Amino acid sequence: MISIGIIGGSGYTGGEILRILLNHEKVEIKAVTSREYAGEPIFRAHPHLRKITDMKFIEPDLEKIASLCDIVFLAVPHGTAAPMVKRLLEAGIRVIDLSADFRLKNKEDYVKWYGWEHPCPELLELAVFGLPEFHRDEIRNAKLVANPGCIATASILSITPIVKAGFVEYDRIVLDAKIGSSGAGTSVSEATHHPEHSNLVRAYKPVMHRHTPEIEQEVSLKSGSKITVALTPHAIDMVRGILVTGHMFLKKEITMQEIWKVYREMYQNEPFVRIVRDHKGLHRLPDPMNVIGSNFCDVGFEIDAHANRIVTFGALDNLMKGAAGQAVQNLNIMIGVDERMGIGLTGVRPV
Amino acid sequence: MISIGIIGGSGYTGGEILRILLNHEKVEIKAVTSREYAGEPIFRAHPHLRKITDMKFIEPDLEKIASLCDIVFLAVPHGTAAPMVKRLLEAGIRVIDLSADFRLKNKEDYVKWYGWEHPCPELLELAVFGLPEFHRDEIRNAKLVANPGCIATASILSITPIVKAGFVEYDRIVLDAKIGSSGAGTSVSEATHHPEHSNLVRAYKPVMHRHTPEIEQEVSLKSGSKITVALTPHAIDMVRGILVTGHMFLKKEITMQEIWKVYREMYQNEPFVRIVRDHKGLHRLPDPMNVIGSNFCDVGFEIDAHANRIVTFGALDNLMKGAAGQAVQNLNIMIGVDERMGIGLTGVRPV
Amino acid sequence: MISIGIIGGSGYTGGEILRILLNHEKVEIKAVTSREYAGEPIFRAHPHLRKITDMKFIEPDLEKIASLCDIVFLAVPHGTAAPMVKRLLEAGIRVIDLSADFRLKNKEDYVKWYGWEHPCPELLELAVFGLPEFHRDEIRNAKLVANPGCIATASILSITPIVKAGFVEYDRIVLDAKIGSSGAGTSVSEATHHPEHSNLVRAYKPVMHRHTPEIEQEVSLKSGSKITVALTPHAIDMVRGILVTGHMFLKKEITMQEIWKVYREMYQNEPFVRIVRDHKGLHRLPDPMNVIGSNFCDVGFEIDAHANRIVTFGALDNLMKGAAGQAVQNLNIMIGVDERMGIGLTGVRPV
Amino acid sequence: MISIGIIGGSGYTGGEILRILLNHEKVEIKAVTSREYAGEPIFRAHPHLRKITDMKFIEPDLEKIASLCDIVFLAVPHGTAAPMVKRLLEAGIRVIDLSADFRLKNKEDYVKWYGWEHPCPELLELAVFGLPEFHRDEIRNAKLVANPGCIATASILSITPIVKAGFVEYDRIVLDAKIGSSGAGTSVSEATHHPEHSNLVRAYKPVMHRHTPEIEQEVSLKSGSKITVALTPHAIDMVRGILVTGHMFLKKEITMQEIWKVYREMYQNEPFVRIVRDHKGLHRLPDPMNVIGSNFCDVGFEIDAHANRIVTFGALDNLMKGAAGQAVQNLNIMIGVDERMGIGLTGVRPV
Repeated sequence: MISIGIIGGSGYTGGEILRILLNHEKVEIKAVTSREYAGEPIFRAHPHLRKITDMKFIEPDLEKIASLCDIVFLAVPHGTAAPMVKRLLEAGIRVIDLSADFRLKNKEDYVKWYGWEHPCPELLELAVFGLPEFHRDEIRNAKLVANPGCIATASILSITPIVKAGFVEYDRIVLDAKIGSSGAGTSVSEATHHPEHSNLVRAYKPVMHRHTPEIEQEVSLKSGSKITVALTPHAIDMVRGILVTGHMFLKKEITMQEIWKVYREMYQNEPFVRIVRDHKGLHRLPDPMNVIGSNFCDVGFEIDAHANRIVTFGALDNLMKGAAGQAVQNLNIMIGVDERMGIGLTGVRPV
Repeated sequence: MISIGIIGGSGYTGGEILRILLNHEKVEIKAVTSREYAGEPIFRAHPHLRKITDMKFIEPDLEKIASLCDIVFLAVPHGTAAPMVKRLLEAGIRVIDLSADFRLKNKEDYVKWYGWEHPCPELLELAVFGLPEFHRDEIRNAKLVANPGCIATASILSITPIVKAGFVEYDRIVLDAKIGSSGAGTSVSEATHHPEHSNLVRAYKPVMHRHTPEIEQEVSLKSGSKITVALTPHAIDMVRGILVTGHMFLKKEITMQEIWKVYREMYQNEPFVRIVRDHKGLHRLPDPMNVIGSNFCDVGFEIDAHANRIVTFGALDNLMKGAAGQAVQNLNIMIGVDERMGIGLTGVRPV
Repeated sequence: MISIGIIGGSGYTGGEILRILLNHEKVEIKAVTSREYAGEPIFRAHPHLRKITDMKFIEPDLEKIASLCDIVFLAVPHGTAAPMVKRLLEAGIRVIDLSADFRLKNKEDYVKWYGWEHPCPELLELAVFGLPEFHRDEIRNAKLVANPGCIATASILSITPIVKAGFVEYDRIVLDAKIGSSGAGTSVSEATHHPEHSNLVRAYKPVMHRHTPEIEQEVSLKSGSKITVALTPHAIDMVRGILVTGHMFLKKEITMQEIWKVYREMYQNEPFVRIVRDHKGLHRLPDPMNVIGSNFCDVGFEIDAHANRIVTFGALDNLMKGAAGQAVQNLNIMIGVDERMGIGLTGVRPV
Repeated sequence: MISIGIIGGSGYTGGEILRILLNHEKVEIKAVTSREYAGEPIFRAHPHLRKITDMKFIEPDLEKIASLCDIVFLAVPHGTAAPMVKRLLEAGIRVIDLSADFRLKNKEDYVKWYGWEHPCPELLELAVFGLPEFHRDEIRNAKLVANPGCIATASILSITPIVKAGFVEYDRIVLDAKIGSSGAGTSVSEATHHPEHSNLVRAYKPVMHRHTPEIEQEVSLKSGSKITVALTPHAIDMVRGILVTGHMFLKKEITMQEIWKVYREMYQNEPFVRIVRDHKGLHRLPDPMNVIGSNFCDVGFEIDAHANRIVTFGALDNLMKGAAGQAVQNLNIMIGVDERMGIGLTGVRPV
């Protein structure tokens, strides 16, 4: 059994890691921290876990956690993770960091996109971008896994086959994302106040969204061509789920068969990517409603002959494949068990 | 391995049985029927099951199903189940019927509440009301289990301890239910058209709702006193979930300790009933949002000294403890395995 | 033209008063206050009012407001209104107070239900409970109108005819309310955080809700019999709207005609009460979805012969007939114009 | 007073025309037709209009309507409008057609985009595209106004200033639309069944959507350059409202001032277009939640220096500026009254 710690366990991502790991056969949860809830039962923050666990939250004492755990999940805000990661690594703990602090390889990008100097740039090289479909081998022995962003995961997985195949222009890639409120976390704000987050379509960061450099980094790496991404996310009246619609312009005429081929080549053996393009019924393309509660990323595509365009779709549950589920997928790879262990959960539908 | 058939597999209840049983260690699904989808892959009706199963729907041929299966789940409309049940029982198959056709013991009640003569009243005695908390021993050897209604389950479990204890008046029991749209099934109608089922609170059957006699039958049986129930369900803008609020009037003064005692006595060893009455935090009482995707029924209570009232709450996922989850709980009892097998799913939250 | 001030203009109720009065023929808005938004354009808090008005919020300076206005709407939190009311009345200003501070006639009730000693009990007698259907004549010359609570309005209007007729038991009146999030105002909290306020049915104040004494006071007064009310409100996933379901037990057998008669007698000449009990179609009973944006309170009823019960329904828009609309109805009566002026707005549907 | 008929009055658009015209000072409604509801009161289909009107639906008898009315609104399905229009015009009636049957100037476009030969192509020239901001003068004397589509209106108004200014590439214009369920009308279907239309993001017509040629026709006409549009609409969990996000690529560097200038030039005198780009607060850009119930189209924009892109936003209420509101705006122009008459309704918010 692997001993696990979760730092920042009272948020939605922490709750989702718990939902998964409390049923995982090969791990034991030793510590779950929360400043706000320290000393209180976990079910007070996560009422769905009542009768599932009697554990209590503890204070985030890194020394204690290091003494108890083999691997630690960090589910804390961007910027606060980096110093914790450094100390945990020094204590010999392997870390899965769900913040953005180690996703980017280029330290200048933190200045440009996040507005701060990275406090431990020497660790950036050590960090592995935790997208199993692209970095499975490096994850296996990683000391530090930087778990990808939710919009980034849906974007990267859905557009890379097309870009890598060289079908589309590299500098006119539009990613129009639609996202539920749970992505904003548990902190209350005017933006997530129910009357202000109902029946809305709000472009909350219309340009320069922070997931942009992750997407560019990974798609460029995998495709071998430098791309530029035009990303605009929209908050909609939904709690879980993301759909990223990709709009790209064709460099030459292609057939549907060619597109199927590049998607199949990339994903046919992937346990958590489904290619969805049905010719019948209501559910012909990816839709977050069909992945809620599961670790799947559904990807799909369509050719627009009229506008010389390919449209792609990437749908996932932002707390699963977009955060906790992917983190456990990384964990499974790191500890050498079946990659699907604990995350073979079937989606819940309708919901 | 037990061989299982599902008749009426393309509806929401059928999909939920599949979600559970495809991961159940002791059963094998041999047949899933659908007139509408016969010959098509299951994922066409249930897109969340894509890549989980490659099975196809078949036509509802009872002889074939009887030859393939040990136990059959019937998820067909009220009224159509009865003749199928009869034929399956004659073929020696054990049946878990999710319709209302065998829930009531008194054949006159079908005339009164459903408006039809029961076609096989001789089977009513054979049928066991499939509420494990009340009928576990009879379910074990049952040939025919009549799976309870969703509102009925939440109602019965939440009020019985109070009624049985004799705390309240038997003829002034108000049950005010709030229910999501999935309870209406997959058939489209004006009532479930999205613009007509959004931002609504619609008492769709304000009196004489068909779950009334189930509730009266079971609570009366368990409490030893004949009760009358005043039930009004309301459709609200939610897909999954039910809350039943019980309003009952005290016959004498009682303390909170006495109430806790009768609930604990009845449910402390029950795997799927949680008593929820917290003194702190946001989630102090049962709320369907905390059970979605799980088989729990959360029950809670409050004393209203001002109005001489007890208020009770029963929350469940109508497709789980209210239908498919409870059906599998019954299955587990019937086949002698751990009652929680396959339905120990943790709820998905937030969603 | 009457000069109007709105104190507390940046909340939802303030916004709704503005929506109405900016199109009212007989009033001129002279001052709209907000501590938070002082100096900023009104459309910053109320983006739907962009291009409708260029006014700015000002600081809540009572002297200044008194010098500018004839009548002032107070839309500030309970407890903070009372001292402001006192000063405004002393300055000769007529006040429509949307807080609870002057709704109850009995000063002890503030201690019991609100937990504070009323700071100016001498004004309680002066205040008129602002329910036009019951107090139209007193409102006409009132110096101080205490605008009723939203749940209270729906409750009082829907049950009074039945109670007054003596059809039901006075001490077993159950009011089960379902309410949207806008009733909680603009202040953010965990309870109204979107992921925590979606797909929920949460009894947030299961007993001893503060609208109870208002309802008891007014129904008792109108019916001439002292009643006790058992009120439980539930937050549901809706922004605007309230439905109050009343469950009452019959003292004797009655006919539907008798019920129609007592409702017609009370409301047939009321401009803003509709009796809704259709025999056909989807919308047979009151549902908040049919009153959103309008000042109607829809009331309806049903007899439950099985349980010896009457069920009543009261539906309204909590920001209109439940707050701002009713406040303007009171204003119209106070200034002697057509009671419907500015609030003859047709509901918006579907929405 | 102008005499008005509404053919197809029981749908959502018909209901919205009624909501407006029942309060319009210069028109009298003489006939409202519905095959399904003929003989029944209007409030049976439109329960929010109860107590607002006692009118009944009549059968769609064109002769009778022609004898009663000066101007007729046609709110019937695409394809069925054309022959009715022809007959009404022959009878000397002016027509505002809310279907798509006369929006396109080029008869071949009906074959390409709608799949049918236009039955009366000779009338295409006569028809005026009913977007007042672009065709006010022609509308004034029009016999036949073709009311624009909802997505089309939001698209055209939001992107035209940018395109006309020559800032962006003409053949890489992405329009990513998000739309509520009321746009699908009152006909029930699996796609709009509440459990299938909740928590969804469904690209229901990912390429070749029928509003494409309208947009291309009008933007090309106004800008003087032929454009190609890549449109993908998404159904989301919302009843009313549309947001169209435009993604366009810059041909040269431009400043925010230049963009403001071209929008102001086009819209500064328009009563129903608001330019929304605030520098403060939550509501900085167009969001359908801020226009619900009103006739405004909010337009906004942002520069993406990173990706060499302009992002535009167009938000409207699909039943108002996207259908009925715009139709009445056209009516007002046709009959020579203040363009805002009856549609100066302030939006309802929050809702």
